[in-house]
Amino acid sequence: MSAPNAYAAACASRIVLDRVADKWTVLVLGVLVRRPTRFNQLRREIEGLSQKVLSQTLKNLERDGLVTRKVFATVPVTVEYSVTSLGETLASRMGGLLEWAEANVGEIIEAQARYDAVTPRAEREQPARLS
Amino acid sequence: MSAPNAYAAACASRIVLDRVADKWTVLVLGVLVRRPTRFNQLRREIEGLSQKVLSQTLKNLERDGLVTRKVFATVPVTVEYSVTSLGETLASRMGGLLEWAEANVGEIIEAQARYDAVTPRAEREQPARLS
Repeated sequence: MSAPNAYAAACASRIVLDRVADKWTVLVLGVLVRRPTRFNQLRREIEGLSQKVLSQTLKNLERDGLVTRKVFATVPVTVEYSVTSLGETLASRMGGLLEWAEANVGEIIEAQARYDAVTPRAEREQPARLS
Repeated sequence: MSAPNAYAAACASRIVLDRVADKWTVLVLGVLVRRPTRFNQLRREIEGLSQKVLSQTLKNLERDGLVTRKVFATVPVTVEYSVTSLGETLASRMGGLLEWAEANVGEIIEAQARYDAVTPRAEREQPARLS
């Protein structure tokens, strides 16, 4: 059996990459790695994340073994999410992406303005020319 | 002005995160950081990537100042893509994600099998219960 290779379409690591290269996964794990958090608190901390998408994101993370879900028998029931040790190793890689995005957003906005200034709108919306 | 914060919906770093947390961006930069590469060579190296999606991914990366495009006056015209120094800093962060996906795919598949064995299908497809 050959080593996992995300460049091969049929390799399972491609599916993993698809899951982890996801904005909401990055943001949710970024909260959970600091402390166990309840569903509604996650919703408050991550602006723009709908209940449905958060619910699906957490379910995927739980199924992947990256997050655990603990139910407390309060009224109403309280559910708290936390990262597993596998999830922690991913969160540290993802933290790098989040930091990079926050650190370089200014440079990227400048690059976009330069690009838009010299590229006619029609060409920006057409497919790139092939080699 | 406050520091960029990807947890705020209106912060531009959220847009950057959306771009960089993308499977195809991770795979394309992973090729280009090793060497400048032509369009058709990129298509061959990254299985399952359509011409249209590759074209749009490269255009976005060029606009963000992460990739440059060099045109050679051959017949037919040859176009080669390479990473900028800003793109290199992102690629090194992304390399960590790619390595993580390849290294942990086995553990994730096992976790999924355990989850599926104890979770009825109907519950897996319903929204998670709220806290």
